[in-house]
Amino acid sequence: MVAEIITIGDEILIGQVVDSNSAWLASRLNEAGVSVGRITSIGDDPAVLIQTLDEASLRADIVLMTGGLGPTRDDKTKQTLSRYFGGKLVLHPGALENVKRIFSITNRPLLESNIRQAEVPDNCTVLLNKQGTAPGMWFEREGKIYVSLPGVPYEMKALVIEQALPMLKGYFQERLSPVLHRTLVTTGIGESFLAERIAPVETALPPYIHLAYLPRPGMVRLRLSAYGSEYPPGRSEGELEAELDAFTARLADLAGEYVIAHQDIPVPEIILNRLKDKGHTLVTAESCTGGYIAHLLTQIPGASEVFLGSVVAYANQVKAWQLGVRQTTLDRFGAVSRETVSEMAAGAREKLGGDYAIAVSGIMGPGGGSPEKPVGTVWIAVASRDQLQAEKFSFSGERPQLIERTALAALDMLFHFSGETD
Amino acid sequence: MVAEIITIGDEILIGQVVDSNSAWLASRLNEAGVSVGRITSIGDDPAVLIQTLDEASLRADIVLMTGGLGPTRDDKTKQTLSRYFGGKLVLHPGALENVKRIFSITNRPLLESNIRQAEVPDNCTVLLNKQGTAPGMWFEREGKIYVSLPGVPYEMKALVIEQALPMLKGYFQERLSPVLHRTLVTTGIGESFLAERIAPVETALPPYIHLAYLPRPGMVRLRLSAYGSEYPPGRSEGELEAELDAFTARLADLAGEYVIAHQDIPVPEIILNRLKDKGHTLVTAESCTGGYIAHLLTQIPGASEVFLGSVVAYANQVKAWQLGVRQTTLDRFGAVSRETVSEMAAGAREKLGGDYAIAVSGIMGPGGGSPEKPVGTVWIAVASRDQLQAEKFSFSGERPQLIERTALAALDMLFHFSGETD
Repeated sequence: MVAEIITIGDEILIGQVVDSNSAWLASRLNEAGVSVGRITSIGDDPAVLIQTLDEASLRADIVLMTGGLGPTRDDKTKQTLSRYFGGKLVLHPGALENVKRIFSITNRPLLESNIRQAEVPDNCTVLLNKQGTAPGMWFEREGKIYVSLPGVPYEMKALVIEQALPMLKGYFQERLSPVLHRTLVTTGIGESFLAERIAPVETALPPYIHLAYLPRPGMVRLRLSAYGSEYPPGRSEGELEAELDAFTARLADLAGEYVIAHQDIPVPEIILNRLKDKGHTLVTAESCTGGYIAHLLTQIPGASEVFLGSVVAYANQVKAWQLGVRQTTLDRFGAVSRETVSEMAAGAREKLGGDYAIAVSGIMGPGGGSPEKPVGTVWIAVASRDQLQAEKFSFSGERPQLIERTALAALDMLFHFSGETD
Repeated sequence: MVAEIITIGDEILIGQVVDSNSAWLASRLNEAGVSVGRITSIGDDPAVLIQTLDEASLRADIVLMTGGLGPTRDDKTKQTLSRYFGGKLVLHPGALENVKRIFSITNRPLLESNIRQAEVPDNCTVLLNKQGTAPGMWFEREGKIYVSLPGVPYEMKALVIEQALPMLKGYFQERLSPVLHRTLVTTGIGESFLAERIAPVETALPPYIHLAYLPRPGMVRLRLSAYGSEYPPGRSEGELEAELDAFTARLADLAGEYVIAHQDIPVPEIILNRLKDKGHTLVTAESCTGGYIAHLLTQIPGASEVFLGSVVAYANQVKAWQLGVRQTTLDRFGAVSRETVSEMAAGAREKLGGDYAIAVSGIMGPGGGSPEKPVGTVWIAVASRDQLQAEKFSFSGERPQLIERTALAALDMLFHFSGETD
């Protein structure tokens, strides 16, 4: 089963928008056992869309389109699709109801262009979009499926998860074999070293179980996928699942202490979950990361059960006044030192009242480096009620990467520290 | 002049990586007067690359490729391009020198696969990559240019800015007319209301000056672009520039107080620049944004000259202990109230020692809402030494969008407040 993705909109071709929809769609399709053969971004031009659809039809079973469904006259996708599949636009009562509902919430006047949002080709199945005014559209032709989705990410995602993906699984039921996935999240080890450690499992995998390395800054996720399509006939999905679980357990064994989670969730969420389970709270004292660690933690719904707050101590006066770092420490060892981060961590725990604290201080550049402490030099400390650990790191990259890497290293350090100290 | 972009790599098709390179490249090409006709993402497959190159050659003058140049055997782009353009791979002394230099810095052993990074087709012009081991490659055929670039964003960007773009401008000199741009950044006004205000200028624009609306959450950038190619012959670039400047001034006039900058820089940088010019400092007290405002400010190099720090007061105890918010205020009005944010702003200014303070408190969801204070309810306060302003906002969206919108609204509020209070 092969899919192609077409993203439609001039805003992509002028570089105004980064197309993050395609990666998300590709990821969901791969999980469902559908591989993506090509992603094409084109402008709002009917002739180009038709040509691209013709080409994609030759190669793919499924064509997913995003974008080009806005209320302005620039957006011609709906008209083009209607013609391409030989239908005509009609007002869809359910879609109109939906448009009216959305406008009544926000109390805006309903314009002619908004009503046109409820028009759809009469030969498509409408996917009602509860989050926005542009409905999704599902077309079938010669055993292939074409789905047109709005470009607004959260509207698109809701339509895919709730409607398009279940419908695709139903339609291609007989051709779509089960694909099962297990993910291990590892931190603190590079891809090549990890590969060496887990080689015995990797070489022992049967042809129907695949291992993928999914690296991100500061972490590598390992994904084992079992493909029903490649499974010897006569065996059940239950057997495949048991085999996958056994390999996952062996993999986790070999990866050892680097495994920080047995499912694919963000590192900050892993940490919040662990602390929540123990009834512990967390605070941060951030100099060089400037609040980014706090931001990563507070992006997670429910963070407030664990995370109490942070002092972003960019200026030394804030380190002294809010965290109790001694002026003599700052004078003697500097802001980027074992002594200062240790006092920051201890001070944050005491003054904000948390069970655990993370503190970071470093030089993110482009200015501020010196021969002894070049850009990328970072001290990180983690503290509990009665223990404190501080470590020095040397990162490379530009300012945004340095902030990212420092934050992830600090979270990783706390993860291991909190495991050892409870 | 039309370009196409081809991004190469299985990691894009499985959704592991969001392709941000294409938007960046498209933006640079558009600024240089080259429009982008299509962006195609394909896997590491020689046959597919050749087919895609054939198709792109029919439509475009310039084909830019990124990715597929890594040292592993999966990456076959270099071999494929060498064959496609009828050359053979040879070791390039300058590229080898560069690989050795990079390995000597990081003190890693040089493997056979790393040396192969210095091999290039003998019929390309090598673009030396100072930041990484994979060189860029420039091919000419039948008056069209093909450039292969590494996929690592900062390597690719440096090669484009320093080499590929100047070379393209040189090569297509006669066909590439000057394109001049002016950008105004506006906040606090929606696209359609802005369009109404500036209609008199928009309708008066000559055919060779185009207006683009570039919306982002919380802001709309207006870009005027003057195209030399569409300019009446006989007039000079200087005249075009003067005319563009005059229209930009009229546009700024009509957009009035909503214009916060006359060049395309991020909002946090605009604010830091203004405060720096006046010698003022800034602190924040963040509840619901959880450090995101501090993060936006500290992403900007040199932020430490203006930004002193923040108290991320997620828990009420931190609001009380670190910011001096009174328990009676919290009890009587709640954490999300005019009274609490006002005390947070005043407390942050005093306790962290800043000239200006921003304070935010709100309900980001998914939990925590109530009929009186639903998810999306936000109070923002800004304070100077002797003035304080607090305002209530109601935003819609999911948690990440609510955090983003709240942060931008707060920065915008401070921008206008600091303009009125100095």
